[in-house]
Amino acid sequence: MTTGVRRRMGVEERRQQLIGVALELFSRRSPDEVSIDEIASAAGISRPLVYHYFPGKLSLYEAALQRASDDLAGRFVEPREGPLGARLLRVMRRFFDFVDDHGPGFAALMRGGPAVGSSTTNALVDAVRQAAYVQILSHLDVEDPPARLELVIRSWISLVESTALIWLDGRRIERGELEVQLVHDFAALAAVSAAYDPEVAGLLRKGLRDEPGDGPFTDLVVRLLALASPPEA
Amino acid sequence: MTTGVRRRMGVEERRQQLIGVALELFSRRSPDEVSIDEIASAAGISRPLVYHYFPGKLSLYEAALQRASDDLAGRFVEPREGPLGARLLRVMRRFFDFVDDHGPGFAALMRGGPAVGSSTTNALVDAVRQAAYVQILSHLDVEDPPARLELVIRSWISLVESTALIWLDGRRIERGELEVQLVHDFAALAAVSAAYDPEVAGLLRKGLRDEPGDGPFTDLVVRLLALASPPEA
Repeated sequence: MTTGVRRRMGVEERRQQLIGVALELFSRRSPDEVSIDEIASAAGISRPLVYHYFPGKLSLYEAALQRASDDLAGRFVEPREGPLGARLLRVMRRFFDFVDDHGPGFAALMRGGPAVGSSTTNALVDAVRQAAYVQILSHLDVEDPPARLELVIRSWISLVESTALIWLDGRRIERGELEVQLVHDFAALAAVSAAYDPEVAGLLRKGLRDEPGDGPFTDLVVRLLALASPPEA
Repeated sequence: MTTGVRRRMGVEERRQQLIGVALELFSRRSPDEVSIDEIASAAGISRPLVYHYFPGKLSLYEAALQRASDDLAGRFVEPREGPLGARLLRVMRRFFDFVDDHGPGFAALMRGGPAVGSSTTNALVDAVRQAAYVQILSHLDVEDPPARLELVIRSWISLVESTALIWLDGRRIERGELEVQLVHDFAALAAVSAAYDPEVAGLLRKGLRDEPGDGPFTDLVVRLLALASPPEA
């Protein structure tokens, strides 16, 4: 069933190869537009052989998404050293690398729709969000977050997703600027919450203790002040 | 086909009644859990008669969602008078009224999934987002927004959605506080963007001209300053 020169692969090896080929195709175009024929052709095997390993396109898509999710969740892992702002910026850089590599597939997945909105794919997306949430909590050194802190973190994660989607639609802003902006957005949203909730304020103060004077939060406050004062003549 | 005492409805009247009944049911529970039998029973008609007006549950769901979308888009319309913060707060109140009324259905729709993720439902959700975006631009008196301003507005809209979803999951924060917080979040995100982009800064300054001294932005800056200074002993 394979061409003459190509050596035979074991079952698991072949599955992994197919997942890799599929992920590549599902990343570059909307999954709606990728056919099993195309995947078979890219993998150098016959269409029936693809079906031997995966019952249909959805199961192959889900396997590819599982691999992409593991990859993405791994990018959130960051040593617990140095200022929080710098750690978050490194994570944002790795996140945008991922978005850059998987643009059309990422956009199709996050926008939802019949081809990509199965309960399995939704669960995978939620698992990645949860991994991001748990990482941030761990860096803030918080085990039992108050409701407002949970809200800040989870809603900021959705802000990151939507910012990436808007960026992908035309790439009209330099991605490095967005990476920095999202770190500042986190500081700003946490600050809004902290401004009204003593518990979040206490956690934020603790987090800011190790921020350098030119870190995102200090920088932001200075710039906000300049903005609140009258414009220069 | 109707019971003896009940008067016969015209076609359009019956369609509208069915949409109303369906919207009520789809709002209170996940659409997956609502059956055509239940809708028929709630409307006081037979199951075949429901199918006479709507070919299936999806088309009835889409019609109900269309009505809900029109309702929601209407709530974004706000007179262009008075401080921007106060206008946005009134819109947030009406938005949370809507979310409160349609909680489970709203959550199911926004989380996506097979029953609710058709291309029609996605288009309806996007149309509501676009209506919100256009309203905000109009209140800011901007016709041709720079990319960063578009990003701030669109990503804030997604922040509002995710905040509402998190609120619905347990309602652990008083919704009035969230309404105020989201107005502050808008100011904070706009300020982050303005802090790095002169064009957005100019638009923000113009918008802040009419803000009262105790408006959300001024209030926020004062509170941020207090936060940046050392905690009181």
